[in-house]
Amino acid sequence: MTAGGNTVERSDDQDAGARSIGVAVLGMGNVGAEVVRIISDNAADLQARVGAPVQLRGVAVRDLARPRAIDPELLTDDPGALVARDDVDIVVELMGGIDPARGLIRAALENGKSVVTANKALLAEYTGELATAAARAKVDLYFEAAVAGAIPVVRPLMQSLAGDTVERVAGIVNGTTNFILSAMDETGADYEATLAEAGRLGYAEADPTADVEGYDAASKAAILASIAFHTRVTAADVYREGISAVTADDLVAAKKFDCTVKLLSICERVHDADGSERVSARVYPALIPLTHPLASVNGAFNAVVVEAENAGRLMFYGQGAGGAPTASAVLGDMVMAARNRVHGGRGPLESTYASLPIAPVDDVPTRYYISMRVADRPGVLAQVAGEFTKRSVSIAAVRQEGAGDDARLIVVTHRAPDRAQSECVAALEDMDAVIKVSSVLRLEGTDD
Amino acid sequence: MTAGGNTVERSDDQDAGARSIGVAVLGMGNVGAEVVRIISDNAADLQARVGAPVQLRGVAVRDLARPRAIDPELLTDDPGALVARDDVDIVVELMGGIDPARGLIRAALENGKSVVTANKALLAEYTGELATAAARAKVDLYFEAAVAGAIPVVRPLMQSLAGDTVERVAGIVNGTTNFILSAMDETGADYEATLAEAGRLGYAEADPTADVEGYDAASKAAILASIAFHTRVTAADVYREGISAVTADDLVAAKKFDCTVKLLSICERVHDADGSERVSARVYPALIPLTHPLASVNGAFNAVVVEAENAGRLMFYGQGAGGAPTASAVLGDMVMAARNRVHGGRGPLESTYASLPIAPVDDVPTRYYISMRVADRPGVLAQVAGEFTKRSVSIAAVRQEGAGDDARLIVVTHRAPDRAQSECVAALEDMDAVIKVSSVLRLEGTDD
Repeated sequence: MTAGGNTVERSDDQDAGARSIGVAVLGMGNVGAEVVRIISDNAADLQARVGAPVQLRGVAVRDLARPRAIDPELLTDDPGALVARDDVDIVVELMGGIDPARGLIRAALENGKSVVTANKALLAEYTGELATAAARAKVDLYFEAAVAGAIPVVRPLMQSLAGDTVERVAGIVNGTTNFILSAMDETGADYEATLAEAGRLGYAEADPTADVEGYDAASKAAILASIAFHTRVTAADVYREGISAVTADDLVAAKKFDCTVKLLSICERVHDADGSERVSARVYPALIPLTHPLASVNGAFNAVVVEAENAGRLMFYGQGAGGAPTASAVLGDMVMAARNRVHGGRGPLESTYASLPIAPVDDVPTRYYISMRVADRPGVLAQVAGEFTKRSVSIAAVRQEGAGDDARLIVVTHRAPDRAQSECVAALEDMDAVIKVSSVLRLEGTDD
Repeated sequence: MTAGGNTVERSDDQDAGARSIGVAVLGMGNVGAEVVRIISDNAADLQARVGAPVQLRGVAVRDLARPRAIDPELLTDDPGALVARDDVDIVVELMGGIDPARGLIRAALENGKSVVTANKALLAEYTGELATAAARAKVDLYFEAAVAGAIPVVRPLMQSLAGDTVERVAGIVNGTTNFILSAMDETGADYEATLAEAGRLGYAEADPTADVEGYDAASKAAILASIAFHTRVTAADVYREGISAVTADDLVAAKKFDCTVKLLSICERVHDADGSERVSARVYPALIPLTHPLASVNGAFNAVVVEAENAGRLMFYGQGAGGAPTASAVLGDMVMAARNRVHGGRGPLESTYASLPIAPVDDVPTRYYISMRVADRPGVLAQVAGEFTKRSVSIAAVRQEGAGDDARLIVVTHRAPDRAQSECVAALEDMDAVIKVSSVLRLEGTDD
């Protein structure tokens, strides 16, 4: 039994370890190239861990002509044919995007192949469809790499916490936006300049929309919420705001409240007054106290905090992107899927038994930080406070700054339904005494 | 199919979900009581996650007379008979200690029952024996709760990182010692007073030896090293020093070097000059830089940092002890073991294919912090430095403090084999100019 052998032997003896496990990789970008490298470099370790040799059957790429560090005979531009091969047991999908990844994964599952994918956009829409196909074929559908790169989050939530009740998942799961916010915090530069710098350094893509407008973080929130609450949550269920409106002033102001600003993906079990429960999934830039464990997660790092009834608060921290770290997560899944093919059994799939309703952000209790330019005259604070009182939103802190044309008022509220908070903001915008509401951010990570 | 039904139906259809999964709990201390409570409180959730009802068949306790929050008919003082019951599928061992836990677990495994245990002392000695029995019977042996309580560490290391190469695991995995060191750091009190206070607050046991002398941390290091390096490492292979010699002065001095003192469990892949590899597992109090992620892990919290070739540095943080958090980890394992009985398959067991030799601490490159009282006269520094040069240990920093009777010299070395470092210390102790070597600690968590 050698790792490099080419003979495919199949055996019904689940523990024999005599057959090899065939792997097809779809896509050879940063992550795919690392996956291919590690499968070759670590063949002996992978074989020992799986119980059978792991063999790369082929890699589907768009451009066959491009030079790559791989035996050219393994390359194909026909992913459909690769997926359909009888000697492929596991399909590792790293193309990204909905199509053709969706059809290829379905075809793989329907043909009894296990699938490992890092495709968060696809999973955030079609986990239901894919999990159903996997369940029908009794194969694995693993996707650790879809959320927070190398950091084990999906498996701990699905397996380690399988006996607990998750109350909340809050994470920094997008490296681009965290790099930008960290850099703005450190340098005092504004958003546009920092985004441009992030682009130059390779931390932001040419079209950064998916990152900076929170679409990527929202896909990950949908995936995390689905797992945490045993409820199907899709990207469309996630309330989303990006970071493009965050200003250098916001970061300065945050510091005065011993806070910083982070783009958070928040998944929360909402306990309604009648004892029923709903799920909230949302993404927005928020103030968090400097003492909160997520406050010190800087640069391109990711971290996810999980709060569960019995486990209490757990944090998972590490590299959320990059070829090798993401490949590490992909290969962990690949080894487990391969091992299941050798030893029998399979990992848990999507679980939606709880089917909790989605709570719109309007209903979710949040806290607001509101910064506004106001007329510098007596009575303004009382008038402003009145708008909050009217909507039963109680004020936690007020700071008055500047004078004359630069008179500013900063208000931080206590928890109240987000609708009431946003109605306060709308009312302030209509007030004569308020010249401009210059910034509105939510405040997360506090106990009250 | 109700969670409360008592009929045990067995079926060969792996997906039927018609039979119930019978659970026996051995031991009803803090953790056992929480496990029993959660099985009853969360019956519907557990059933949905497992795919079959989970039913508590019985709980073995030492003292039947003691009042407990449980149907007395479930209690027994005959754990052997409970484990042998035909309607028990999973044995949850929470008695602790080697005997009778060892025999009961073996009997359970040999009778085809899956086992979930939190027994680190047992695992650190007898994982080999137990895993062999589990492999033979094709059942699960899970032990997430044995290391770092609620924090998922075992499963991420065994599964999520199954495709990576772990280089290093360093953890704060003993809450008692971390509480004591954190309190000493905060209050400036000495070890004895802080230990007494920890006892009063319930953070230290009446006989604190297992914690303060590092035996508990060493057991966990053995377990972590075994998993991380696919090599059997037992408690006897772990070099061990406790915290009882750490002084208030050490914590003050650590701060001057922008460090703090933590009891670390370190598991390291040692790369020898000839290209071969060995495993080092060791426990000692060490200085770590305040910027290191483990430096801010305070009180009874635990954290484990894993460094892997591709994943980079990951950190797992949370509650390392306590009834409910530990029960969360136990129940995650129980759900996965139960799920495997319903759906077929089983989790990975001990993997020892790498069988790396153990590196004695003498051979491991370490850094030292040495504080000594010296004679206040010219030439002492040169003389001290000479002892290091003689043994090819290079000095990274020197601090001279005080004068006259209180003249002190603090030396921090660069990395060199631990034997050379400790020989330097012995030589210093023999020097006339050195009145007393008052403190020796290793320095960890630095790159150089």
